[in-house]
Amino acid sequence: MTGALLSAALWGAVSSAAVAGPAQYSQAGSATTAQISAPLFASELNRARAFVDRMMKAGVVVPFPKDPGGGYTHEQHKQNFKVIYQGGQLYKLTGEQKYADYVRDVLLAYAKLYPKLGDHPARKNSQSSGRLFWQVLNDAMWLVDSIQGYEAIRSSLSAADRKNIDDNLFRKAAEFLSTGSAVTFSKIHNHATWATAGVGMTGYVLGDPELVNIALLGLDKSGQTGFLRQSELLFSPDGYYTEGPYYQRFALKPFVVFAGAIEKNDPSRKIFDHRDGILLKALRTTIQLTYAGRFFPFNDAIRDKSLKTDELYHGVAVAYSKTRDPGLLSIAEWQGRTVLTDDGMRVARDLAAGKAKAYPFRSLLLSDGPEGKQGAVAIMRKGDGWTGQALVAKNSSQGMGHGHFDKLSWQYYDNGHEIVSDYGAARFLNIEAKQGGRYLPENESWAKQSIAHNSLVVDEKSHFNGDRKAADKLAPQQLYFSDEMGSQISTAKMTGAYPGVEFTRTLALLDIEGLDRPVAADVMRVDGGNDHQYDLPLHYNGHIMRVGFELESNVADRPVLGEGNGYQHIWVDATGQPSSADKAFVTWITDDRFYTTRWVPQAGSQTILAESGANDPDFNLRREQILVQRVASGGDTVFAGILEGHGRYDGAAERTTASDSQIRTIRHVRHGDADLLLIQTLAGAKSVLAISYDQDRSRTHSVIIGGEKISWKGFAAHVRLGGGVQ
Amino acid sequence: MTGALLSAALWGAVSSAAVAGPAQYSQAGSATTAQISAPLFASELNRARAFVDRMMKAGVVVPFPKDPGGGYTHEQHKQNFKVIYQGGQLYKLTGEQKYADYVRDVLLAYAKLYPKLGDHPARKNSQSSGRLFWQVLNDAMWLVDSIQGYEAIRSSLSAADRKNIDDNLFRKAAEFLSTGSAVTFSKIHNHATWATAGVGMTGYVLGDPELVNIALLGLDKSGQTGFLRQSELLFSPDGYYTEGPYYQRFALKPFVVFAGAIEKNDPSRKIFDHRDGILLKALRTTIQLTYAGRFFPFNDAIRDKSLKTDELYHGVAVAYSKTRDPGLLSIAEWQGRTVLTDDGMRVARDLAAGKAKAYPFRSLLLSDGPEGKQGAVAIMRKGDGWTGQALVAKNSSQGMGHGHFDKLSWQYYDNGHEIVSDYGAARFLNIEAKQGGRYLPENESWAKQSIAHNSLVVDEKSHFNGDRKAADKLAPQQLYFSDEMGSQISTAKMTGAYPGVEFTRTLALLDIEGLDRPVAADVMRVDGGNDHQYDLPLHYNGHIMRVGFELESNVADRPVLGEGNGYQHIWVDATGQPSSADKAFVTWITDDRFYTTRWVPQAGSQTILAESGANDPDFNLRREQILVQRVASGGDTVFAGILEGHGRYDGAAERTTASDSQIRTIRHVRHGDADLLLIQTLAGAKSVLAISYDQDRSRTHSVIIGGEKISWKGFAAHVRLGGGVQ
Repeated sequence: MTGALLSAALWGAVSSAAVAGPAQYSQAGSATTAQISAPLFASELNRARAFVDRMMKAGVVVPFPKDPGGGYTHEQHKQNFKVIYQGGQLYKLTGEQKYADYVRDVLLAYAKLYPKLGDHPARKNSQSSGRLFWQVLNDAMWLVDSIQGYEAIRSSLSAADRKNIDDNLFRKAAEFLSTGSAVTFSKIHNHATWATAGVGMTGYVLGDPELVNIALLGLDKSGQTGFLRQSELLFSPDGYYTEGPYYQRFALKPFVVFAGAIEKNDPSRKIFDHRDGILLKALRTTIQLTYAGRFFPFNDAIRDKSLKTDELYHGVAVAYSKTRDPGLLSIAEWQGRTVLTDDGMRVARDLAAGKAKAYPFRSLLLSDGPEGKQGAVAIMRKGDGWTGQALVAKNSSQGMGHGHFDKLSWQYYDNGHEIVSDYGAARFLNIEAKQGGRYLPENESWAKQSIAHNSLVVDEKSHFNGDRKAADKLAPQQLYFSDEMGSQISTAKMTGAYPGVEFTRTLALLDIEGLDRPVAADVMRVDGGNDHQYDLPLHYNGHIMRVGFELESNVADRPVLGEGNGYQHIWVDATGQPSSADKAFVTWITDDRFYTTRWVPQAGSQTILAESGANDPDFNLRREQILVQRVASGGDTVFAGILEGHGRYDGAAERTTASDSQIRTIRHVRHGDADLLLIQTLAGAKSVLAISYDQDRSRTHSVIIGGEKISWKGFAAHVRLGGGVQ
Repeated sequence: MTGALLSAALWGAVSSAAVAGPAQYSQAGSATTAQISAPLFASELNRARAFVDRMMKAGVVVPFPKDPGGGYTHEQHKQNFKVIYQGGQLYKLTGEQKYADYVRDVLLAYAKLYPKLGDHPARKNSQSSGRLFWQVLNDAMWLVDSIQGYEAIRSSLSAADRKNIDDNLFRKAAEFLSTGSAVTFSKIHNHATWATAGVGMTGYVLGDPELVNIALLGLDKSGQTGFLRQSELLFSPDGYYTEGPYYQRFALKPFVVFAGAIEKNDPSRKIFDHRDGILLKALRTTIQLTYAGRFFPFNDAIRDKSLKTDELYHGVAVAYSKTRDPGLLSIAEWQGRTVLTDDGMRVARDLAAGKAKAYPFRSLLLSDGPEGKQGAVAIMRKGDGWTGQALVAKNSSQGMGHGHFDKLSWQYYDNGHEIVSDYGAARFLNIEAKQGGRYLPENESWAKQSIAHNSLVVDEKSHFNGDRKAADKLAPQQLYFSDEMGSQISTAKMTGAYPGVEFTRTLALLDIEGLDRPVAADVMRVDGGNDHQYDLPLHYNGHIMRVGFELESNVADRPVLGEGNGYQHIWVDATGQPSSADKAFVTWITDDRFYTTRWVPQAGSQTILAESGANDPDFNLRREQILVQRVASGGDTVFAGILEGHGRYDGAAERTTASDSQIRTIRHVRHGDADLLLIQTLAGAKSVLAISYDQDRSRTHSVIIGGEKISWKGFAAHVRLGGGVQ
């Protein structure tokens, strides 16, 4: 009952202001109590009013379904479920009858249309056809929003209208999305989450426990499918969604919204405590999977997705309501948005009261898989989540159909930018000219391929030879993770991506004496058995300033790197054979900071400077820089290198500092089973990243190099040296 | 005397606060009167204190000159003149003796060093050698700042110290920069402005009218050279500086600062009224030559230069003080900076008092040349100067040694971005790895060449065959300019850039019925006499969405477009031969907006889709997109086209609107001497850009096309049609 009391108090200010009419919200300068106490909420009210009023002017438009995604009827039905939702909330908040009337009229039009509908004429196949939309997923999204709008006005309706809309629209829609679309409804997949959320919420509104039960427990009510099972299988124990952050964001909304409805209607279920509070954990994890507000672009990600998205407005509001974590308020502040619910009002009010604190972005290991045993994502950070450093090791599993062949790849962020990058999806969402906004052919031929990632490529083939079914079966193994500040280290191993080749990668974020910023270190050990060509690409974002070694350049005729598996999309600018680590480096500039990548060249290895965009007659690809280390090996090799951010270019003040690398050299030493990466700065500071690969945390390892003894305990460590080692 | 009284009142708050010590400014949370009334000024004080305190900690460091630009002694002497200036201002503002003492000690060290100096060891040639720096220009900049710092502490010194610094440092430095560097001092060039400003201000401080006189009137005091003459010859009557905005910004500081000193010491000169107030006009023009705060990158411009630069902090403060134009306050607000002078305090105080108004960015024609007869820059705007449209026609003269061969080229800005771009300079300022930060060889081989600009290239040669001396002699002729909103039109003609070829370009910003934004139209008439190949490049910034015609693509082997004059730097992606204007278009996306360029293909013409970056083994060039229209002509031709911004891509809301062109087609008609460009939208609206080239404003012209009569008065007009024309 506390909830209800609080709610009344919260709405008090808004309602009393609202009685005087809409002008108070839409006219500038007329500050109401609500605006003063919660401007974010007031601006949402204004936004909703503007949208609903515009829709009301156009009248009730419920066309017979005809077009695929992006077409007229598709867009109109999308607008309609938004207006049903927002109109309902406005009625609830303001008591203005016109909103209830309009939502009622739209729903009556749907009640008349819905019984006449069969498979959608633009469906791709019957199994996934919607009624209102070409895909059943869109019908489920329609229901999730519409049932909430209906709930807000239902008690205001005449008995006849209520029965008409209950029976001819929502009961039929829930029927279609459950028993009528049994295959989708029974999946363990985000499409099914949308469907179960819509059906379950409809059950609560219509007072139909059967609908609630099948939504929660599956059509057979066994609990093997349905919403609860989805929340157990789709997220790892750490709240990571296997498809990656882009889809995690999308999947989150029905989880959070339906959970809110369960909590309200059936608080004894303690849904937010289910599986150790997995839903709120997943929300927090979603936020942790961002840098400067944007999601790490794992797998088929559209790269411009940020926390500024409807799903996260809902998620943050619900999570704040449950946790009162002031860090969430700073996220809402950055979003500049909230939702028109009690939870949204609370966010807005507490934000206005100055309760926000910086969100605690931090280093963490996120296990993948329902039991947390299918690899992991390791995030190593220093500084804040907007301008600090973030090293991301993607050691997670394939992630189903939207997964990429990118085992043990990594990304690096600094100074507000993506420095070592991931291509994401080859897709221009909703842009008609680019194949109607669908995934482009280059998503298969480039974006998913291993060479398009910061991963290892053996013999110019992608992991699992590009076979997704095979990839689904084998995940990397996270061997070690330490978030100790100054010596953050992650090690993972991949077996089975290539026959007979196993690779183990250690990525570390290390504080180096005398340097302003930490250095990212990378030690990739490859055990191959027999002859192979190994390529280690680095996809980076910047303009080359200096190359430390001689190049043979293709200055007047630019060839392509290879024939297939993504290699056909790579232009070769130049090749070189650096002979030592003091020369094996490339420095580039990104925004106002310099970056130097430096590596230990193996005997006979080659370096390729390249760019994406070959074999792309339709200009579907972005053109981005790539550096490839290539080694023809008798079987085993180690790639060892570091990435260093340094200096500053200040164009306004015409001042440049430390534009060249601050590292003198690096060195790799193999000692027994251990790998050691020695780093020496220009100023003379020396340290070593030492990896024993020994899981015994208490065992001490020692190596003598150049007369100096290097000792460390356990799997791996970052050791400062006195001098004399190199 | 009002000035003095006001000044006292202004400083009152600061001084009383300052008595309590520096902590009041450097500690967060202790708001002083100054901080409350003028936070911008308080933050400048904090910044200066932090810098000067840091320098004071390091002690007095005045090394014997040795290094070229970017080297240690170079940077140290730069830091020193900044600390002399800022230390002096701090003493004046706070009365704290430590600042006067430190500035004195630094100056005494210079007084000891200076008499020993000869030509700089890293000089490029004796004529332009400095004493403290490798270039005399840097010595002049040293003097301009240092003499102001000295002025602030001079009266606090002992007679002996004063005499020592007067005689051994400033008198000698002024002597060196005037009679000792007579060639530079007597130029009509910004280097001479720095020298005369330094020498003249030294004259005022030392009470030496001779120095003031030679600064104002030249070494021979004839007025043929010197500061006054520079202000007459270097700026056009509209305040345009012939080298372009990047150098205009740089040239402005000594003009403004020395003028301030003249006004203070010799108000009867009315220096700010000189030549119809040219100095303030030049300042306002400098601001008008920006979009989203950045300078139009004409000629050898470093593209990241914005209004956030020391020269403009001074300029805005002085101009505001003289004019009280509230628009200047909004510029200061965007800069987030001001200067530590009375003028800066006034800016900060009035800004804090809420007096700022949006700067009135507007359409205007800026004549070039001392008498305004050497061409012009035409700026056509709609909306504000940060997100609106700006079409810039560069019809100005060559602009001396930093000029580019870019006659009648254009640029286009929209939505906060450069859409049709100019490369600027091939230079990475102060970045050691890029040839020590100097102009790169590619500045000559690419950036200056005609093909690197949105201009006409005849027979693959640059204008004036790349001969700067020849280019200096001939400027374009501005034939027409109209800033009528909705029908803004500029026409200019270039004769002599190529033997026997004359070209006349009309650029227009036109409101089209039913379109959200204006369309940029381009009609380039070429009169050639005999056989030529004409190339019309369009340098644009975006990712291609749709090409309206068939392409032959170089997908696996990328050739270079040509042999020299910049052509060697162009990769050819694809070629095509569109046959009609409804298909001759390319659509791209920049940020969240779409752009379509569309043209009327001449018989036998070809289109080349290309990218810069070929023959660039050192990665000195940015890689940018180019579209070239190529026609082999018997002599005369007309290039006619439009550029249209349309629609929106909203990644967050997953909503895309109008991603395809809203224009159905365009058509070019030649009728007698007149050119007509007909534009028809998808929705059916029709209009025509009609150009008679007739200077008689009162004469009416009529053309009948498709049965419809098109009439307009004078040189050019934009006429809406009833229908039936196309």
